[in-house]
Amino acid sequence: MNNFTFYNPTMIDFGKDKEKQIGQHLKNNNINKVLITFGSDRIKHSGLFDTVVASLKDHDISFVEFGGIISNPILSTIYDGIKFAKENQVDAILSVGGGSVLDSSKAIAAGVKYEGDVWDFFCGKEKINAALPIFSIMTLAATGSEMNNGAVVTNEKTRQKWAIASVHTFPKVSIINPELMQSVSKDYLVYSASDIIAHTIEVYFTAKLQPEISSRIVESIIKTVMTTTEILISEPDNYDARAEFAWASSLALNGLTKAGAMGYQYPNHMIEHSLSAIYNVPHGAGLSVVMPAWMKWYYNNNTKQFERFAREVFGKDSALQGIEAFEAWLNKIGTPTRLKQLNIPTDDINELVDNVFDNAKYFGANELYTKDVIASILEKAF
Amino acid sequence: MNNFTFYNPTMIDFGKDKEKQIGQHLKNNNINKVLITFGSDRIKHSGLFDTVVASLKDHDISFVEFGGIISNPILSTIYDGIKFAKENQVDAILSVGGGSVLDSSKAIAAGVKYEGDVWDFFCGKEKINAALPIFSIMTLAATGSEMNNGAVVTNEKTRQKWAIASVHTFPKVSIINPELMQSVSKDYLVYSASDIIAHTIEVYFTAKLQPEISSRIVESIIKTVMTTTEILISEPDNYDARAEFAWASSLALNGLTKAGAMGYQYPNHMIEHSLSAIYNVPHGAGLSVVMPAWMKWYYNNNTKQFERFAREVFGKDSALQGIEAFEAWLNKIGTPTRLKQLNIPTDDINELVDNVFDNAKYFGANELYTKDVIASILEKAF
Repeated sequence: MNNFTFYNPTMIDFGKDKEKQIGQHLKNNNINKVLITFGSDRIKHSGLFDTVVASLKDHDISFVEFGGIISNPILSTIYDGIKFAKENQVDAILSVGGGSVLDSSKAIAAGVKYEGDVWDFFCGKEKINAALPIFSIMTLAATGSEMNNGAVVTNEKTRQKWAIASVHTFPKVSIINPELMQSVSKDYLVYSASDIIAHTIEVYFTAKLQPEISSRIVESIIKTVMTTTEILISEPDNYDARAEFAWASSLALNGLTKAGAMGYQYPNHMIEHSLSAIYNVPHGAGLSVVMPAWMKWYYNNNTKQFERFAREVFGKDSALQGIEAFEAWLNKIGTPTRLKQLNIPTDDINELVDNVFDNAKYFGANELYTKDVIASILEKAF
Repeated sequence: MNNFTFYNPTMIDFGKDKEKQIGQHLKNNNINKVLITFGSDRIKHSGLFDTVVASLKDHDISFVEFGGIISNPILSTIYDGIKFAKENQVDAILSVGGGSVLDSSKAIAAGVKYEGDVWDFFCGKEKINAALPIFSIMTLAATGSEMNNGAVVTNEKTRQKWAIASVHTFPKVSIINPELMQSVSKDYLVYSASDIIAHTIEVYFTAKLQPEISSRIVESIIKTVMTTTEILISEPDNYDARAEFAWASSLALNGLTKAGAMGYQYPNHMIEHSLSAIYNVPHGAGLSVVMPAWMKWYYNNNTKQFERFAREVFGKDSALQGIEAFEAWLNKIGTPTRLKQLNIPTDDINELVDNVFDNAKYFGANELYTKDVIASILEKAF
C-alpha cells in the first residue's frame, strides 16, 4: 500500500424523509440565508421544493433561488451563480438536484470567496483557500459528488471539461433519500450505473500498486450496482434496491476505493469529458461507450487485474471474456456502447482526438495517451 | 436499507514515516500543549517517543507525559489522567499506542471537560458535550479505535466493562504507520485478527435488516484479514500485508459496515467484556473463544446469512461447516477457542453468567440473552 491521507468530513443523512431535516442541518451550522440551486422545475412540481422551503421556514432561514442548471454544467452558469450569490450575501449554497447541480454549487461556493476568475481554479492556476459552506439534497445518484470534494464544469467557449477539488468543497451535509430518486428515467438510471462503475474501475485497472482490500471493495460496489440496476429497471419503486444503488454511488468516489493505490489515472473520464464537451452527451452514456473500447485497448497492460475482474464479477476465465461480458451487460441494460448510438460522427474524429489529447496533457497522461493511441481507442467504439 | 447517518471526520494519515507529521497536524489544529499518553516504555526503547518529541519541538509544541496505561484500561487510570491533564492545562491528548491507550485518551479527553464523574458517561447518565481534541499514533491495529468515536473502559471496582461514544470523541487525526506495528508479538497479532473480524460479524449476523453491499464489504474485510494474518505470521516484516491488515482494522469499525443495517446487537463483545472484566484476558483472545461458541448457538436465527458466510468466506455448503471452518482457522493461527486456554475455570460460571447478564441489560439485549442462554453459549466453549 502506498502512503495516503483519508479525510472525508461530509455528513451523510440517508433515508426516507431526510430532506425534512435540512433546516435543522443548516441551523446546526449557523446558516441564516441560503442560495437554493436546482435544475429544472421538476423539483417544484414534485413538491420537494416546498418541503425544503417549509423546513427552512421552520428554522428561520431565508433563501434565494437559482434554477435552470443543466446537466454537464457550463462555466457561464457558474459566473451567473457567483454574481447572484454575492449580490444576495448568502451564507451557504443548498443544492437540490443531481451531480450537475451539486458540482455547480461547489464551483459557485468557491468562486464567491475569490476575487478573480473561478476558472483559475479549474486550470490549476490558483488554489482554493475558502468556499461558502455547501449542503445538498440529492435527487440522482451517479456522480458520487454528494460525498466528495470534486466538481466538474465545462468551459463552453474553450470546450474544456475540467475539475476542481479542495478540502473546502466537501459538502458539510448531503441528504440522500432514495425515494426522491424513484422518478428518474430508465435512461438516466442506466447512465448512472455506468458512471458509478466507471468511478471504481479507473483506479482498479490502472493503479501500479493496488491494494487487495480496495479491489475487493470495488468488486463489492460493482456487483451491487449490477444487481440493483437490473432490479430497478423492472421495479423502479423498489426502495432497498434504490437505496443500495445510491449508497454504492457515494462509496464509489469518496476516497475509499483509491486509499493506498499508486500510479493510477482516469483515462475513461479523460476521454468522456471530450465527448460531453463537444457533443453534450450524458456523462454516463459517454462512459459506457468509452469503457469497453478503452478496456479492449488497455487490458494487456494489466492482464492479471482484468482476469481478476472477469473471474470475480462475471465468473469468466479470461480478460477478454470479462470485457465482453461487461459490454454485453451494458447493452443489456440499454446504455450505449458505440459512438453512433450517441449520434457522434466517426468520419472525422480529429477534433475529438485533439480535445482528448488536451485532457491527457491536463491529466498528465499524454505520454501514454498519444493522439494515435486515443484514435485507436475511439475506433474500437465505432 | 434502514435510515442512517454516516459521519466520520477523523483524518487518517497512513504510511511510512507519517509519525513525523504529528507536529504539523497539531499545529494545523492550533494545539500548543499536549498530553502524551502511552502504555509501556516500549515506545521509548524503540525511538518512537523521541521521534514524536522531535516533531513537537519543531513546531513549538510543549508536552507532558502520562505512561503506564495497561491493556483493558481501568477507570482509576482515567481518573488519574483527567486530574493530570487538568493540572497541566493541556490543549489536547496525543495517544501513542494501541486501542487501550487511545480509548483511555478519549475518556480522559471527555472527562477533562466535565465537572462530574467521567463514569457517568459510561453509565449513560450524562451525555458528552465537549472533549479535548484527540490525536493518535497507532502502534497496534485491532480495535478500530483510530477511526471511530468509541472507547471502552473497565470499572475495576464494579467489574463493568462499558463504553462511551460521542461526536466529540472522534480523533481529529490518527496516524497509522504499519512499520510501527511490525514488532507486535505473534500472540497479539492473532488476537488483533480476532478483534477485527469480531467487529464485522456482529452486525453481519445479527441485523434484522442487512444491506447486501455491507455484507460484501464485511466479507472483503474478513478475507483481507485472514490472508494478511497468515502472511504476517511467517513474514512479520511484510509491509503490504501489515498495511492492509491495519486499514482493514480501521474499516471494520468506522461506521461503514453498519450503515443502513437495523436491529443488530453486539453479543460477542457483550460476552467478552465479562471475560476481560473478571479475568483480564486479552480482548481479541476472549473474542476468539466467544465467537465460535456464540455462532453455534445463534446460527439458526439467521441460517441464510451463516450459509452465505460459509460460502463466500470458506467455500463451504452449510452454516455449520462455515462455523467449523472459522473455528479451525482460529485454531490454525493460534488464538484460543476454549475457555480453558484462557485459564478460565468452568466448574462454576455463575459469576461470569451474572456479569454477562448485566451487560445484556446494559446493551438492551437481555430478553434474548437470558442467564440460561448465556450459560449454554459459554458451555459451547468448555
